[in-house]
Amino acid sequence: MATTNKQILLAARPTGFPQPTDFRLAEGPVPEPAAGEFLVGISYLSVDPYMRGRMNAARSYADPQKLDEVMGGGAVGKVLASRHPGFAEGEFVVGMFGWQQYAISDGGGVVKVDPRLAPISTSLGVLGMPGLTAYFGLLDVCAPRPGETVVVSGAAGAVGSTAGQIARIRGCRVVGIAGDDHKIRWIREDLGFDAAFNYKAEARFFEKLKELCPAGIDCYFDNVGGAITDAVFPLMNPGGRVAICGQIALYNLDKPDTGARLLPLVLVRTLKVQGFLVFQYADRYGEAFPQLARWLQEGRLKYRETVAEGIENAVPAFLGMLRGENIGKQLVRISSR
Amino acid sequence: MATTNKQILLAARPTGFPQPTDFRLAEGPVPEPAAGEFLVGISYLSVDPYMRGRMNAARSYADPQKLDEVMGGGAVGKVLASRHPGFAEGEFVVGMFGWQQYAISDGGGVVKVDPRLAPISTSLGVLGMPGLTAYFGLLDVCAPRPGETVVVSGAAGAVGSTAGQIARIRGCRVVGIAGDDHKIRWIREDLGFDAAFNYKAEARFFEKLKELCPAGIDCYFDNVGGAITDAVFPLMNPGGRVAICGQIALYNLDKPDTGARLLPLVLVRTLKVQGFLVFQYADRYGEAFPQLARWLQEGRLKYRETVAEGIENAVPAFLGMLRGENIGKQLVRISSR
Repeated sequence: MATTNKQILLAARPTGFPQPTDFRLAEGPVPEPAAGEFLVGISYLSVDPYMRGRMNAARSYADPQKLDEVMGGGAVGKVLASRHPGFAEGEFVVGMFGWQQYAISDGGGVVKVDPRLAPISTSLGVLGMPGLTAYFGLLDVCAPRPGETVVVSGAAGAVGSTAGQIARIRGCRVVGIAGDDHKIRWIREDLGFDAAFNYKAEARFFEKLKELCPAGIDCYFDNVGGAITDAVFPLMNPGGRVAICGQIALYNLDKPDTGARLLPLVLVRTLKVQGFLVFQYADRYGEAFPQLARWLQEGRLKYRETVAEGIENAVPAFLGMLRGENIGKQLVRISSR
Repeated sequence: MATTNKQILLAARPTGFPQPTDFRLAEGPVPEPAAGEFLVGISYLSVDPYMRGRMNAARSYADPQKLDEVMGGGAVGKVLASRHPGFAEGEFVVGMFGWQQYAISDGGGVVKVDPRLAPISTSLGVLGMPGLTAYFGLLDVCAPRPGETVVVSGAAGAVGSTAGQIARIRGCRVVGIAGDDHKIRWIREDLGFDAAFNYKAEARFFEKLKELCPAGIDCYFDNVGGAITDAVFPLMNPGGRVAICGQIALYNLDKPDTGARLLPLVLVRTLKVQGFLVFQYADRYGEAFPQLARWLQEGRLKYRETVAEGIENAVPAFLGMLRGENIGKQLVRISSR
């Protein structure tokens, strides 16, 4: 085992799009667990859109990321040493271990991972927070009925690709929006989306959506916001439901954006527009996880990962994810243990 | 009984704020009921914000008002002659009789009015569509809990004044926004709103609301939209609920307005924003009406009417209502029968 623990700290609060200089690599000794603690050797880190919000000083639903501290985030790894009665050496665990090679934990918020069920990396993706987010956002907030048209933005990301497939499983017509042709091919050909388009190659979002959604849109699972969302709303059918899961198009702006006023459509179409966080459904994870695992084992739910190598690549992976360079779940492999 | 029936027709589709020349007064003979029909002598017409939307060519939730036809709208009156087994001469009825002095009806959508319960004009206000709109929007969409802060825009209108009072009855702190000092005095002193402000005398909506809502805003009953709503959203508490009942600030614009993007707040505050129409609750009117009547009789629910005199004043009353000149329900008295 190495004796140094490399960590990525937040060095400065970004304005607009984050820069590599907003982060700093630090090295310290590998920590030792005290009584009631265990040491985790990280296998994979997760980089996620929500992290951008936490880098701002303003409190939103979570406290801001502190400056000069290890970047917070989900990670999966192996228990290397334990003085905790509930966690044994050799077990795999997922938790908020942060952007580092080794973490100490008291078990708070940590869940054991069964490596026989699926590769452990899925605990950060389709069988983890993104999968649960897709599950509850789609089934609880959108609540589509068979035959309805469901549009997903950010459709090739970890959450969007899962949400779209769940909508397919529920018998919906699913239309995806993503930002490059490889992504479009993946969600159309491998995931079975009924239609999809590359918004970076398409000037007229509204017209394209209208063509792909001849019966209008009943549900919209929004990861993106901004101009794409402006094009979706006028196509929403009466009684439509919009799950606001992310607004990544707006996370890196220097100042708040303005846009079309959507509430008149919310009124005349009697829409329900709901923001949600996966943590709101914590008491129902026990329902969702086995269902996601079953769909995965049955081959009805597919996933893809984009994996960067080494802690030194965590920042580039994060910035690339914000630019939409990943297909499926963006991970950083820290160790192949 | 007079022999002529004066009617107001829609002469042209307005662009922007409607003009008197968009309407035309017509005269015809008083119609006679055929078998299965009855003749109503109108007592009061209702003029309502939703009518502005129907004057546009585009279909929203209802078909557009047809040109050169009698303006549609709710009215209450007396059955003057009947060849319908279900309606007898002398009974009072409310229905979509339109902007005219006399109407023929086959009973479709018509409800009898008990003049001993309350003045018949209330069937167009607190005990009619506006009262039911307030009831369901507040109790079903906002669903406030005792002690929560509820903000109502358009708070001195027929719907807003009722919604605010129902929130008070439910034990909420109620803050109203309206457009003149007489309205503010009425909702504060007579209706018991906890706080209120005149947005036309206040340049900084956000700061004023923040002062009046020290615990943030849990529910927002929105009749207005635009800049007022932009100021409310950043003060919404996590899990807050927004009922979109009207967007009158935006009805008379020449072209669609742009404004602050609200969905990022919908996300991080996990808000539910829902547009609704009273007709969605038609199967629950039987629950709401007796409750509204009981509160009225108990003196817990108060109302006020602004009454224009004569069919010739229907158009000025409608335009004045769009400008916010009414306090409480705007009516037009057609006959004192």
